[in-house]
Amino acid sequence: MADKPRDPLTYRAAGVDLEARQRVVQRYREVAKRAGRPEVLGGIGPFAGLFALGAKYHDPVLVATTDTVGTKGKLAALLGPSTGLRTGRYEGLGHDIVNHCVNDAFTTGAEPLFFMDTIVSADLADDAKVALVKGVADACVAVGAALLGGETADMPGVYVPGGFDLIGFVVGVVERQAVIDGSRIAAGDLLFGLPSNGLHTNGYSLARQALGIGVDAGSAEADRRRLERFEPELGETLAEALLRPHRCYLPELQPALGLIKGMAHITGGGFEENVPRMLPEGPTTLRQGSGQAGSGQRLGARLDKRAWPVPPIFPFIRRAGSIADAEMYRVFNMGLGMVFAVAPSDADRVRALVPEAIEVGGVVSARGRGQRVEWAT
Amino acid sequence: MADKPRDPLTYRAAGVDLEARQRVVQRYREVAKRAGRPEVLGGIGPFAGLFALGAKYHDPVLVATTDTVGTKGKLAALLGPSTGLRTGRYEGLGHDIVNHCVNDAFTTGAEPLFFMDTIVSADLADDAKVALVKGVADACVAVGAALLGGETADMPGVYVPGGFDLIGFVVGVVERQAVIDGSRIAAGDLLFGLPSNGLHTNGYSLARQALGIGVDAGSAEADRRRLERFEPELGETLAEALLRPHRCYLPELQPALGLIKGMAHITGGGFEENVPRMLPEGPTTLRQGSGQAGSGQRLGARLDKRAWPVPPIFPFIRRAGSIADAEMYRVFNMGLGMVFAVAPSDADRVRALVPEAIEVGGVVSARGRGQRVEWAT
Repeated sequence: MADKPRDPLTYRAAGVDLEARQRVVQRYREVAKRAGRPEVLGGIGPFAGLFALGAKYHDPVLVATTDTVGTKGKLAALLGPSTGLRTGRYEGLGHDIVNHCVNDAFTTGAEPLFFMDTIVSADLADDAKVALVKGVADACVAVGAALLGGETADMPGVYVPGGFDLIGFVVGVVERQAVIDGSRIAAGDLLFGLPSNGLHTNGYSLARQALGIGVDAGSAEADRRRLERFEPELGETLAEALLRPHRCYLPELQPALGLIKGMAHITGGGFEENVPRMLPEGPTTLRQGSGQAGSGQRLGARLDKRAWPVPPIFPFIRRAGSIADAEMYRVFNMGLGMVFAVAPSDADRVRALVPEAIEVGGVVSARGRGQRVEWAT
Repeated sequence: MADKPRDPLTYRAAGVDLEARQRVVQRYREVAKRAGRPEVLGGIGPFAGLFALGAKYHDPVLVATTDTVGTKGKLAALLGPSTGLRTGRYEGLGHDIVNHCVNDAFTTGAEPLFFMDTIVSADLADDAKVALVKGVADACVAVGAALLGGETADMPGVYVPGGFDLIGFVVGVVERQAVIDGSRIAAGDLLFGLPSNGLHTNGYSLARQALGIGVDAGSAEADRRRLERFEPELGETLAEALLRPHRCYLPELQPALGLIKGMAHITGGGFEENVPRMLPEGPTTLRQGSGQAGSGQRLGARLDKRAWPVPPIFPFIRRAGSIADAEMYRVFNMGLGMVFAVAPSDADRVRALVPEAIEVGGVVSARGRGQRVEWAT
């Protein structure tokens, strides 16, 4: 250990400025204050957020999930310094993480109660942090969830310059008898889908590699110009196509909840990982849940790729990276963000209640391996 | 866009290997399966975790908080490749994040129900990821919380090599009439503290800078030797002193819950930010809560530094960085991880129920600025 005299070291000199942190927290409060609910006990609990669930539920099941915006944040960061859209791009990521988490919880039929976020970075500017929280707060307001709290971790030396992540957690509630669990899904059920508006929050590492954007730190300026150039094939810029926030499916699907037997949110792992998860005895998600109880029947999902339009950003990426078609459907949502199962007898009511719903396939008995996706030919 | 022919790009070549991810998820399941509770609905909800709260609470308040292990992870990573302690070090971080979050929620009197974790990294080895989850699961078992799910985000190009973070999220519950909110704290109340076992999860950026460890990527080998050398002044190695997991205060304090008027978890921001937060009208934490209702009385906390022993790691860091004493108490817990307020008439019962409790000061009326820490001289 060096024992030579030196200037006194401070937390600030070590990269963590507590006063600056207090200032940014005041700004968080300003942008977050709209995202409340009457159940939030704002006057107490300085070390945690308090939400008075109360006695209004008969047999409440809490539904929780966590996710991150991942490398979609790299694209927002790339656009940050040179455009007037800087905070707008970061705000979009706030919508991304809330909508991703809310969709995941909603697959059980749960309404979101509250959300918490964590921002981790080395050197993210205060304006960007506040924009992330503003996006989170606005997306919470849109789905009626409270933003109950959050954390900002300054981690010098862990992230590359400009690198950051936004992590979200949501807690929702559903009455036990109303839980959507896929157990009633049977062969012959119809599969409907709802359109996505782009990549949502998944596959960005592949998209960036295919497009050669945000891959080489030295080409930031060229990457930026590329993102902001109008692409006639897309009818918009790549920035617009790639950074549009993850769509939330709760408003469209809530009116039809009682008719839905199972839902699959098409995220990382595309169709082949996600659609089977809603089937009885289907594989569970990467970390959440722990296996289906199931009825013993072997079911599969049969999907027809021709049933829904694929937004132009997907063939654009496919061609740029010479990516195989099967790989595209294994990684991206390809234009369909949510798939749900309905009894044939309920199909017309679902079509009336969810006008955007597209019939994309059906549930089939699988003689061999069950719980997988077959593609109609 | 390059239109020249090239090899088909795959997600795996872009840095995300879905099959490898499935394999590590199987290993997570193995280490996490003990961390259950009867309320977890394991058979359903593949996109989220389900916890049947049920009707056993009269007027339940949900208490939630989130935090990260921050740059403490850098030290574990430094020890990773060269020692047999590799997974042990990562497991400790799992205990860190659970105990940090559980302590925060417990300041309201809440018992933890369930926990979720998120691991974000570029290239963290599977063994390390599984060790993190094992530590999380073991710490959940120790406090009776379920590990309800989690997420692992592979983010090539966002973290420096070896860089990662572990983010935690806990949900607890407390009956509304039993919420500990500090509102009954009055001048003359006694302040007790419970010993910490080291830095817990805060101040690592300052500690690393002061000690010159984990600061310069080029000196990893020298840093490692330094961490593993026995330090007579500490009675152990720096690795042992710096990586000991954050202590959980729930077991010691639960028997005395009914006698505690307010609790402050001494984390980032040390005494001066955290102790005032439990006082009526005290400032709230960085992101959580939104101000005290309060009784209008102006209170302060008076603490006597001589009342508790300071573990040798703190003067060791102070001297290495020539850090001012005031800065030390502003950043670190200095040997006291939890401070709580008790009426003088209950003090003997608290001493009997919590034998480790040390009387460290008292609540005083503050004529001028209230809600601050004064140091006894």
